Amino acid sequence: MGTIPDNRPDNRPDKYAIGIDFGTLSGRAVVVRVSDGAELAGEVHEYRHGVVDHVLPSTGERLPPDWALQVPSDYVDVLKTAVPKAVAKAGIDAGDVIGVGTDFTASTPLPTLADGTPLCELERFADRPHAYVKLWKHHAAQRQADRINAVARERGEPWLDRYGGLISSEWEFAKALQLLEEDPEAYRAMERWVEAADWIVWQLTGTYVRNNCTAGYKGIRQDGAYPSREYLAALNPEFADFVEQKLDQPIGNLGDRAGGLTAQAAQWTGLPEGIAVAVGNVDAHVTAPAANAVEPGQMVAIMGTSTCHVMNGTTLRDVPGMCGVVDGGIMAGYWGYEAGQTGVGDIFAWFADTSVPPEYHAEAERRGLDIHDHLSELAAAQQVGEHGLVALDWHNGNRSVLVNHELSGVVVGQTLATRPEDTYRALLEATAFGTRTITDSFTTAGVDVTELVVAGGLLRNRVLLQIYADVTRLPLSVIGSEQGPALGSAIHAAVAAGAYPDVRTAAAAMGRSERAVYTPDPGRADAYDALYAEYVTLHDYFGRGTNDVMRRLREIRRKALSA
Amino acid sequence: MGTIPDNRPDNRPDKYAIGIDFGTLSGRAVVVRVSDGAELAGEVHEYRHGVVDHVLPSTGERLPPDWALQVPSDYVDVLKTAVPKAVAKAGIDAGDVIGVGTDFTASTPLPTLADGTPLCELERFADRPHAYVKLWKHHAAQRQADRINAVARERGEPWLDRYGGLISSEWEFAKALQLLEEDPEAYRAMERWVEAADWIVWQLTGTYVRNNCTAGYKGIRQDGAYPSREYLAALNPEFADFVEQKLDQPIGNLGDRAGGLTAQAAQWTGLPEGIAVAVGNVDAHVTAPAANAVEPGQMVAIMGTSTCHVMNGTTLRDVPGMCGVVDGGIMAGYWGYEAGQTGVGDIFAWFADTSVPPEYHAEAERRGLDIHDHLSELAAAQQVGEHGLVALDWHNGNRSVLVNHELSGVVVGQTLATRPEDTYRALLEATAFGTRTITDSFTTAGVDVTELVVAGGLLRNRVLLQIYADVTRLPLSVIGSEQGPALGSAIHAAVAAGAYPDVRTAAAAMGRSERAVYTPDPGRADAYDALYAEYVTLHDYFGRGTNDVMRRLREIRRKALSA
Repeated sequence: MGTIPDNRPDNRPDKYAIGIDFGTLSGRAVVVRVSDGAELAGEVHEYRHGVVDHVLPSTGERLPPDWALQVPSDYVDVLKTAVPKAVAKAGIDAGDVIGVGTDFTASTPLPTLADGTPLCELERFADRPHAYVKLWKHHAAQRQADRINAVARERGEPWLDRYGGLISSEWEFAKALQLLEEDPEAYRAMERWVEAADWIVWQLTGTYVRNNCTAGYKGIRQDGAYPSREYLAALNPEFADFVEQKLDQPIGNLGDRAGGLTAQAAQWTGLPEGIAVAVGNVDAHVTAPAANAVEPGQMVAIMGTSTCHVMNGTTLRDVPGMCGVVDGGIMAGYWGYEAGQTGVGDIFAWFADTSVPPEYHAEAERRGLDIHDHLSELAAAQQVGEHGLVALDWHNGNRSVLVNHELSGVVVGQTLATRPEDTYRALLEATAFGTRTITDSFTTAGVDVTELVVAGGLLRNRVLLQIYADVTRLPLSVIGSEQGPALGSAIHAAVAAGAYPDVRTAAAAMGRSERAVYTPDPGRADAYDALYAEYVTLHDYFGRGTNDVMRRLREIRRKALSA
Repeated sequence: MGTIPDNRPDNRPDKYAIGIDFGTLSGRAVVVRVSDGAELAGEVHEYRHGVVDHVLPSTGERLPPDWALQVPSDYVDVLKTAVPKAVAKAGIDAGDVIGVGTDFTASTPLPTLADGTPLCELERFADRPHAYVKLWKHHAAQRQADRINAVARERGEPWLDRYGGLISSEWEFAKALQLLEEDPEAYRAMERWVEAADWIVWQLTGTYVRNNCTAGYKGIRQDGAYPSREYLAALNPEFADFVEQKLDQPIGNLGDRAGGLTAQAAQWTGLPEGIAVAVGNVDAHVTAPAANAVEPGQMVAIMGTSTCHVMNGTTLRDVPGMCGVVDGGIMAGYWGYEAGQTGVGDIFAWFADTSVPPEYHAEAERRGLDIHDHLSELAAAQQVGEHGLVALDWHNGNRSVLVNHELSGVVVGQTLATRPEDTYRALLEATAFGTRTITDSFTTAGVDVTELVVAGGLLRNRVLLQIYADVTRLPLSVIGSEQGPALGSAIHAAVAAGAYPDVRTAAAAMGRSERAVYTPDPGRADAYDALYAEYVTLHDYFGRGTNDVMRRLREIRRKALSA
């Protein structure tokens, strides 16, 4: 991380916060200076079991399509390895660390006993897929989500509009209901249904504090309450007491101190016992302060395998197709809006892995380029619309604004003259159109989006970001850190430790971004309007029920696979 | 071609016919024994200029998208090289050759002077793209075709229904009108607008005889007449005398003797001067007798880069979307029906060339397999519908039943789990659905299809043919020759030379096929019905005007390329 500029305001000895970002494939710990947010060192630990989506490690049992599990001990391994290594690499005295903050993928819930022991760590449940963590991208609970939505609409549940009118199959209720209906024995044995974001804080502090962010966005907690017992009973009689018996828990606000580091966690991490541990948080939401982008209108897009969009607003509006709006969900004092795209970098990676011929790989290698850089460069050398294609970016389903994980990808317009870089560009553009669908939906609902602040791994693709600026007609700023979530977690740790009075103040001191690095080109933006119009037509045709072919194809596929 | 069984009926010395098949990339001459159709030897000559679709060879000028030209001297080179080599390879005495028959791609017209000299061979026109042969797959005359159709509908032209309600941009009138409107000087200099099928016979005999087949299918000649002067004037005043001044010509029927081989052609080919040269023919149509499949209900599908379907019928019906119905268009005494798919093997080749990653090529090589065989084998190892995909096979436009070359390909249903063999299989299936669309259209119109008789290069893909049987629910027979068109041309040569009284008799003696090699599996056929229903819905949505996105994408592409 190069030389760290020393802009300490005074001569007090440096204090540090540890931010730990639990991602889809690995966890990363970063040592951050509290005074100015300088990142001294970071360390990544890959989860030993990664994403469990083919076979269950304990038995070798093949998982059905659309399943995605994780193994909770992998998370603890991050505490044991990445944290001490990062501290050692930073060359600081561990005694100068004043707090720990964490963020997690979400909704990534697991069933535990009352003491936090994961069900999958009990011998009698180790062979049950439903005893494991259901990763955010576990997409096998769509049927439950459909029922959750239908019953909510029918009963006129007031909270439904807070989620754009649709509850996702990725969230706590759909996944829990799937558990109940497919493995009732495991459901009955489960005493708590815990977001991994809170479970890891529980491991650090010995205390189960439920964070306001996932409780709101993923747990349907609005105005201090969860869905009613009557509603839950209408979904399934045995689900009636789900909230009171398995879900409800004291709430902690973002930046609050959840507790002190336990002796055991101190031993794992090498950090001082008793230091502040911040309330759990979500990787996307925690990034807004890291980019110091917490003002209304600043939509932060964390672009990686998928994209999450978070933005503060001063007023409460119902935005159709948003993931949710939660009071204080990003930062206290604001309505936190969230939206998302389920497949972005994942789609580009899938294309590069499965759909690019040998000559292209050889040429990229000859040029010393990553295949994505090579394809992006070829793609950039054409006019808007020259490829004659329009694609739908639903290869991993659609979160906003359709909230349907049975949707799938489409490419229209391929001819015998279509080259790999043409389709690649069409896929880049499709994700930009997906983002514009979201910003349009917000703006139409009265929540203006005036700037995109980009974070995440796709930052490095300049061709992609210019396309985003041209398609959305918004200026694009970029976060000043390569480890936005970890930095954001460290900011929350600093607040939890009392170094700053609140997250906004800490963000101003420790967060950073570069403004308007990409701006829309008017000619290209005009040309994209025509392609975007085609995208919208196809989006509505395939996504809003005119032709439910994608859902039927999934059903046919499931039947064929089980035959 | 292995050992030739000798089943001559008597001790007369063997006589031979030469069949010459002019394809898209090469011409092939085959020496065939007249008594039993045995193929003694064949020789291929690749056209020196191939398909001219990027730059004009004479100037290096870049051609617009969708253009496809050829150079007529390439065809003469086939006479000069492939014919003498085939005769030499067969080890026969050239003096025992009694006739020559030819077949050609169509509609593949060229502008010539009154003596047959191609305009492109005149110095002052050598740099004009419009002076060259417009290959069948030249797709740049769609605007003219649209007008041809609109004006015909408006005026209630009686011939329109003979072409399924639509005249293709691939045919003589659209291509000539494009020539007139884009290069009026070349149009005025043109004295004849000649199908290459007839031009090559003209080179062999010194006589311009227009064959009944292309005149009917590609030249809108019905009931002995062409479109009226008034109709042509309505298209463009200067086009009014197109038929009488540039197109009309004495007609020869299939199997008739067009003339005798000239001294010059005898010198080119090494064949005896004066032997019978059959009236020109089309590669698809000439294949029906080669497969001895000339009875009503036997639809012959010549499956290669594209697929042509030809079938005799006893009654005249208007089949929506057929290419055409012509009295004696395949064989005298029957109504000859034609339909077609513009992209079949071309689509598979495009996919294999542009969309298959290195590991697959390496694995195919390791197994000693062609990439298509490797992909087909992987594709075959799954249940119907397991890939979750449905595709539209329009990467090269659509001939039947939509007759629109502005259409393009679609793949619906790709996810991050989609593998190359999945999409490959979906494309194989899409072409099978395209065939079923055609057979359904015929059957609905009262022209029953009871058997598919397959010829062409795709014969060797057993996975593909089983899919066709399952999708169409028809028994599939396969032609008993690898060189169907050349054999068919030789059959016509034998008839033209008087060795048989008519084509049917010659076909029974010289043609051959193996019956019902593939039969539908009821379970798979049922499963395919569900996917076919999805195909039909998408086919009609994208193809029948509900969403003209493909046409607009082409327009955007053209504009972008010209920017």
